[in-house]
Amino acid sequence: MSIRIGILGYGNLGRGVECAIKHNPDLELKAVFTRRDPKTVNILTPGAAVYSVDEAEKKKDEIDVLIICGGSATDLPVQTPKYVQWFNVVDSFDTHAKIPEHFANVDAAAAASGHVGIISVGWDPGMFSLNRMYANAILTNGKDYTFWGKGVSQGHSDAIRRIDGVRDAKQYTIPVDSALAAVRAGENPDLTTREKHTRECFVVAEEGADLARIEQEIKTMPNYFADYDTTVHFISEEELKRDHSGIPHGGFVIRSGKTGWNDENSHVIEYSLKLDSNPEFTASVIVAYARAAYRMNQEGQTGCKTVFDVAPAYLSALDGAELRKHLL
Amino acid sequence: MSIRIGILGYGNLGRGVECAIKHNPDLELKAVFTRRDPKTVNILTPGAAVYSVDEAEKKKDEIDVLIICGGSATDLPVQTPKYVQWFNVVDSFDTHAKIPEHFANVDAAAAASGHVGIISVGWDPGMFSLNRMYANAILTNGKDYTFWGKGVSQGHSDAIRRIDGVRDAKQYTIPVDSALAAVRAGENPDLTTREKHTRECFVVAEEGADLARIEQEIKTMPNYFADYDTTVHFISEEELKRDHSGIPHGGFVIRSGKTGWNDENSHVIEYSLKLDSNPEFTASVIVAYARAAYRMNQEGQTGCKTVFDVAPAYLSALDGAELRKHLL
Repeated sequence: MSIRIGILGYGNLGRGVECAIKHNPDLELKAVFTRRDPKTVNILTPGAAVYSVDEAEKKKDEIDVLIICGGSATDLPVQTPKYVQWFNVVDSFDTHAKIPEHFANVDAAAAASGHVGIISVGWDPGMFSLNRMYANAILTNGKDYTFWGKGVSQGHSDAIRRIDGVRDAKQYTIPVDSALAAVRAGENPDLTTREKHTRECFVVAEEGADLARIEQEIKTMPNYFADYDTTVHFISEEELKRDHSGIPHGGFVIRSGKTGWNDENSHVIEYSLKLDSNPEFTASVIVAYARAAYRMNQEGQTGCKTVFDVAPAYLSALDGAELRKHLL
Repeated sequence: MSIRIGILGYGNLGRGVECAIKHNPDLELKAVFTRRDPKTVNILTPGAAVYSVDEAEKKKDEIDVLIICGGSATDLPVQTPKYVQWFNVVDSFDTHAKIPEHFANVDAAAAASGHVGIISVGWDPGMFSLNRMYANAILTNGKDYTFWGKGVSQGHSDAIRRIDGVRDAKQYTIPVDSALAAVRAGENPDLTTREKHTRECFVVAEEGADLARIEQEIKTMPNYFADYDTTVHFISEEELKRDHSGIPHGGFVIRSGKTGWNDENSHVIEYSLKLDSNPEFTASVIVAYARAAYRMNQEGQTGCKTVFDVAPAYLSALDGAELRKHLL
C-alpha cells in the first residue's frame, strides 16, 4: 500500500513535490490544497484532487503526510503548527535564525496531536546541515566553510526588481574559485564576505531608464550587494527569457580538520551539489523525508524532528537488508 | 560523566582511536586490550590501562563501549559477536560481500545480551555508504559512481611484497581525472575498471633482482593489476621511507540523476574525502559512532546497527538545541 501524500501550496516547490512523487512508486499524490480557486489550478497527476485549503482538515483520514510548500517569512510559522494538528507534516522552513522558535511551536502541536512534523528539510537547511553535522562530529578539531552557487538567488533578484526603472532581473551568486581552492588545500583561510562570493546580475531596464543610476543602486545596496564584487549586465527581455529562465543552484560544504596525537594529520571532507532546478531538488529531499515522517509515526514517534533526528534508513524505499547488501 | 571506551587491538587503527578519543572530551579511554604481552605495549594516554585480551570479560562493568580494531578477514567475524555479549561494540568490518552474514551474527548476539553493536563503521563502508544511501533516496532516477584515491591500498602493497625479489613496496590507487570530469558533468558514462583508476607502485627490490621480471609480474597480476594501467617505479629503501611512509587515502562518491515531470533536469551530488591518514580518519568516524552506541543503548535499543540505522544527532557531543541553533 502506498503512502498517501498531500501538497499544501502549488507553486514551484509544490510542483517539484508532485514531480518527485512520480519518481517514488511507494508514494501516491492524493490531493493538492490551494489558497486559490481550486478550479483554476491544473495539476499534472491523473487521479489526484485539488481542494481549497479550507477543506484540509476534513481530508485528514485520507492523507498520511502533508507536505507544506509555503514561504518561510509568513506562511510556515503559522501553517506548520496548524496542520500538524491533523497530519504528519514536512516543511522547508529556511530562516536559520528562527529555527529554534519554529521547532518549539511545531513540537508542542505535534506532541499534542500525536503526529510527526519534520521541519527545515531541503538542501540548506537540509543536506548541507547534515553534512556540516557529520563532518563536525568526525573532525572535532576543524573549521567549516559553506559556499553557495553558482545559482539564482530569488531574494537578490527580487531586490533588483524593486529598483526604479527595472522591469525584470536575475541574480547569480558565484563562489570565488581561489577561495574554494584554498579551503580544499586545507589552508583554513579566514575569508571575508567579498572573498567568498561574487554576484552577477542580468537586468532588463524600462525604456529610457538611467542605466548608470540603476547599476550604481545595485552595487551599493546594503546587505544585498555592497559587500560583494558585483557585475551588472543590461539585456533584453528576450535574452532574459532565453538564457536565464532556469532556477539552477548548488554549493559546497567543506570541513577541514586535524587528527593525530599532536594534530599532525590534515583531512578535508567536501559535499557539493550542482542542481539544474533548485525547487525540484529541494522537493526530492522533502519527499524522502515524507516517507520517514510516515514510518516514524507508524512506529509511535511524535513531535518535531529535523534531519538530525531521522535515521537515514527511514528515507529509503529499500528495506534494511537490501540497503546493507547494495549500498553499505 | 564521560563515556568509558575500551580498545581491542592496538595497531594503526587502535592508535588512531586513542588519538580520536583525545579530541572528544566527553569520551575517556579506560583500557586497551591486546593479544600481545601487555607489558610490551606502550600506549599514549596517561591513566589508561593495558590488559591482556583474556581479561576483557572481567572489565565489562568498567567499559561503556568496546571498539574492536581487528582485521575483517579473520578477526572481526569472531570478535564482534563474541564481545557484544559483554559490551556495546563498534567495528569497521569492511568485507562488503559478507556484511549480511556478519550483521546477522552480531544482531543475534547483541539482541540476546541487550547491547548495541554497530558494524562496518569508517569511510567505506561508512561515510561513503551513507552518502550513497542519502543520494539514492533523493535522486531515485540516477546512477552511482565511487572513485578511490589518491591513496595507499594496503592489499595491493602486500600483493607486490609477496613477489620474489621484492623487499618492500607501496601502491597508490589514483582516480582518472577525465572519468571524474565526465561523471561530474552529469554525462552518466559507462566506465570500465581501467577507465576509472590507475595504479602506481613504488618498489624496493632485493639487490641483483630481475627488475623487468618484477615489473612484468606486477602488471599482469590477475584481479590486483591486470585490469588497470599500472606504473612501476623502482626506488631505494631510503626513498620509500622518506617519501612514502604516510597512509593517505580518500575518494569520491558521486550520484547524478534526473528530476522533473519528463526528467528534464539534471543534478549532481558529490561527496569527497582527502585524508592524510586513513586509519586516523577511520578512527575518528568510529569514535563518533561509539558515542551513538552508548546513547542508543542507554535509551533501551539493542541489536546490530549500521550507519543507516543511526540518527545523525547521536554522533555529536552537542545536544539537539545546540545542533539546531548552530549547524542546521
